[in-house]
Amino acid sequence: MLLCDIGNTFLHFLDDKRGEYKRQVVAFNPSTLLEKVYYISVNKTLSKKLEDLDNWIDVEPFIQRENYYETMGIDRICAVEAISHGVIIDAGSALTVDIVRDGVYEGGFISPGKRAMQKCYSEISPALRYPFHFELDQQKLATNSQDAISYGYLKLLASEILSYNLPIILTGGDAEDFAKLFKSVAVNKRLLFEGMQKIITQIEKI
Amino acid sequence: MLLCDIGNTFLHFLDDKRGEYKRQVVAFNPSTLLEKVYYISVNKTLSKKLEDLDNWIDVEPFIQRENYYETMGIDRICAVEAISHGVIIDAGSALTVDIVRDGVYEGGFISPGKRAMQKCYSEISPALRYPFHFELDQQKLATNSQDAISYGYLKLLASEILSYNLPIILTGGDAEDFAKLFKSVAVNKRLLFEGMQKIITQIEKI
Repeated sequence: MLLCDIGNTFLHFLDDKRGEYKRQVVAFNPSTLLEKVYYISVNKTLSKKLEDLDNWIDVEPFIQRENYYETMGIDRICAVEAISHGVIIDAGSALTVDIVRDGVYEGGFISPGKRAMQKCYSEISPALRYPFHFELDQQKLATNSQDAISYGYLKLLASEILSYNLPIILTGGDAEDFAKLFKSVAVNKRLLFEGMQKIITQIEKI
Repeated sequence: MLLCDIGNTFLHFLDDKRGEYKRQVVAFNPSTLLEKVYYISVNKTLSKKLEDLDNWIDVEPFIQRENYYETMGIDRICAVEAISHGVIIDAGSALTVDIVRDGVYEGGFISPGKRAMQKCYSEISPALRYPFHFELDQQKLATNSQDAISYGYLKLLASEILSYNLPIILTGGDAEDFAKLFKSVAVNKRLLFEGMQKIITQIEKI
């Protein structure tokens, strides 16, 4: 089975046999692919083209959208669909946090991602231009500038997430960095694809 | 008595009788002022000039710097000197949080200020370009984009601050906005000057 997560710049594929790979949107002609592809897409131009291709199946219509809020991204929803009990942290350009308890989506919040937050601090003052200290002692208030911004970003985030008392699942490009904040955490870079897979299994039963 | 907080752009005065007023650094000649001025300064060029003027007295050498960390701003230290028990939130371009318990400075942390954080979210995605919702229900996870970023910024901050179980004192340009996050809070825009005043009283005793 071939799964595809379509962004504005890349198509991100997961193939049963070949594993994961990426293709640039500009250089990709979807009609060259003849096998069945299940996809989600935030790229409206490409989505339009795919409507005419029978082997490209949009997963989005099969999701119970009413369980989520209106402007919630389809990629975030697919990651949530993958689990039934836990906190999902997707650490990318934004850091989205979503809470699912006993199969029910409770809501979430959005923090800036690592790079965006670092840029934010360094634009306030060159004196705050530090990389974050992910190994920070979270029990101790900061007594230097690097720890002061790391505490302000990372400790506040970790406290909030631990307060839910749920299993923690990390995904996204910066998952390994944020994993350092927790004693017990699972890193799963394919969470979105696992969510798609789960929805597809339901489609195929129909 | 005349107190002055010197930044890179403005001199911020507090006069016993006239109250507060500001002067632009570029348009200000310190030798025109003949009365005694107690000041703190982060402006090295202007500080250099003031060394030759007997009526301008730098308060910084009278502060016990060893109680604070090396790179901590003198303005932040003065605000802390004003109180002996509480959390100080200075909501400006950065949002600094400092904890003083039973007369002892315990440390603090730095979050981005309101404007910097709003810019940060909106640069991640135009879909996150919202003003913050300071009246947010902090007990409820977000189910729309505006609340998702407001929760990510404000609720995490409020939780951390409440966790100290100390009186909360707000200062800085955005103090009124952040005051909405707490049931019990004092807004004191002159905290830094009160700290200076306290140090000066000790100087004058010598």
